[in-house]
Amino acid sequence: MQGCAYVDGTFITPEDAKISIFDWGFLHSDATYDVAHVWQGRFFRLDDHLARFEASLAALHLDPGLDRAGMREVMHECVRRAGLKDAYVEVLCTRGRPAPGSRDPRTCTNRFMAFAIPFVWIADPAKQRAGIDMIVGTPQRIPASSVDPRVKNYHWLDFVLGLFEAYGRGGETVVLTDGAGHLTEGPGFNVFVVKDGVVATPAAGVLEGVSRRTVIELARAAGLPVQVRAVAVDELRGADEVFLSSTGGGVIPIHSVDGVPVAGRARGSFGPVSERLQAAYWALHDDPRYGEPVRY
Amino acid sequence: MQGCAYVDGTFITPEDAKISIFDWGFLHSDATYDVAHVWQGRFFRLDDHLARFEASLAALHLDPGLDRAGMREVMHECVRRAGLKDAYVEVLCTRGRPAPGSRDPRTCTNRFMAFAIPFVWIADPAKQRAGIDMIVGTPQRIPASSVDPRVKNYHWLDFVLGLFEAYGRGGETVVLTDGAGHLTEGPGFNVFVVKDGVVATPAAGVLEGVSRRTVIELARAAGLPVQVRAVAVDELRGADEVFLSSTGGGVIPIHSVDGVPVAGRARGSFGPVSERLQAAYWALHDDPRYGEPVRY
Repeated sequence: MQGCAYVDGTFITPEDAKISIFDWGFLHSDATYDVAHVWQGRFFRLDDHLARFEASLAALHLDPGLDRAGMREVMHECVRRAGLKDAYVEVLCTRGRPAPGSRDPRTCTNRFMAFAIPFVWIADPAKQRAGIDMIVGTPQRIPASSVDPRVKNYHWLDFVLGLFEAYGRGGETVVLTDGAGHLTEGPGFNVFVVKDGVVATPAAGVLEGVSRRTVIELARAAGLPVQVRAVAVDELRGADEVFLSSTGGGVIPIHSVDGVPVAGRARGSFGPVSERLQAAYWALHDDPRYGEPVRY
Repeated sequence: MQGCAYVDGTFITPEDAKISIFDWGFLHSDATYDVAHVWQGRFFRLDDHLARFEASLAALHLDPGLDRAGMREVMHECVRRAGLKDAYVEVLCTRGRPAPGSRDPRTCTNRFMAFAIPFVWIADPAKQRAGIDMIVGTPQRIPASSVDPRVKNYHWLDFVLGLFEAYGRGGETVVLTDGAGHLTEGPGFNVFVVKDGVVATPAAGVLEGVSRRTVIELARAAGLPVQVRAVAVDELRGADEVFLSSTGGGVIPIHSVDGVPVAGRARGSFGPVSERLQAAYWALHDDPRYGEPVRY
């Protein structure tokens, strides 16, 4: 695999990037992370990702041993060494290993790692042109009262079982609910519904995605009303348009929900709001206020 | 660290036991596990642990590539090579790595691993003699509607934040609730309350622990009524006795809840039911129906 990783203070190949199976980042999924992307040689909104990562670290009492400048330098260097123009760049911090025989997380030395690999689409461009087939999954999204989704974490079994359910029902991806009739999010993305020109996305129980924020800002800049509020599952059925937002592809239209085409559209045909926001999302990558050139 | 691990079909030292950071067992905590213990050269209820592990694997669509006999053989061999008489023996299976660029878990090759290390107490013997100081934590235990706790998993951030809360409040461990006034479980243990000679433990939202089952069977064999039902948090305050059950130590008495000694007892003094069940738990280890000698 092309790419570069940073583990134990050293830049190595992805194949050599390993962690101890005794690290609680694995055995307790006691870790946090963030993912930025590089497009055509520029990081997109890197400071927003690093600010969120710092907030996640603080929430979990994790110390990466590097300040923001140090983490930024590692991310640039991973991309530079990998020689990638379009990249998926992850930073993460694990709890580490406890003192022998101890179960006290305070005895652990936290470990910062990073990697850059070729850009990973949440759905590849051909699939995006066709539109995604999404189902509403049975598992409830892990609630914020248990694990705050704003603290980006690896607790994905609700999503994983939702994905298997989707495959069994002819879908490609899944969105989960809060168990009380409201949408939350899917594996790696936020969700938006458009009805009568109004754009809405769930307010709670979700990651506050950088792409989600970008979509909200772009929609408002375009004069579209945006509502960040509780969104009922039923709003998916009556929507004029449904789309996802993700670092792994920006704005991605949904073709169908539970097997029913959104607004009865033909395969590969999307609504005007999705198309406009998708174009605006990619155009923003040329804006120097959002793009930071990789130090190749 | 003393011990032996089994990774990629090879027996290695714990220091060499690593997984790729790209394994979804890490990046998505998409994995399951089980832990048996060896005491004085014998596995305790090994078949019960392996049966539960097989059920967890099936629930998550994971294939370890070994049948029960094969997994048992690996566990014996890990303990034999480590030369341990008292051991903590874990089997686990991760999703593995997806095809390059894919986010589809069906493209992954699942990976079975195991390790044996010196027995890890949930609280060391001195601490057990003193009794544990437990708090009722603020995080809600991840609900079964999101991730079924009977499928043993590494989603521990609710416990981790509960532990930090406990340390801040002068406690040593934490029990979480279901967010509706009922007890669930703690990090690595089930909980029991005793009142007027009746033993009760939560029915739902918990791992169906092998030690929990052992306690239930021992209590019933001793003629004590056992109730497996919803247990209100308030029952902790009025209890005559509170204890934990765990593979990491069997029956472990709680000295205090939220800083208040259970039943007003002095430090190091416990109730008759806890002491009786603790003795019966360890005595059961000599019973050939439950103990399987390690093939050293």
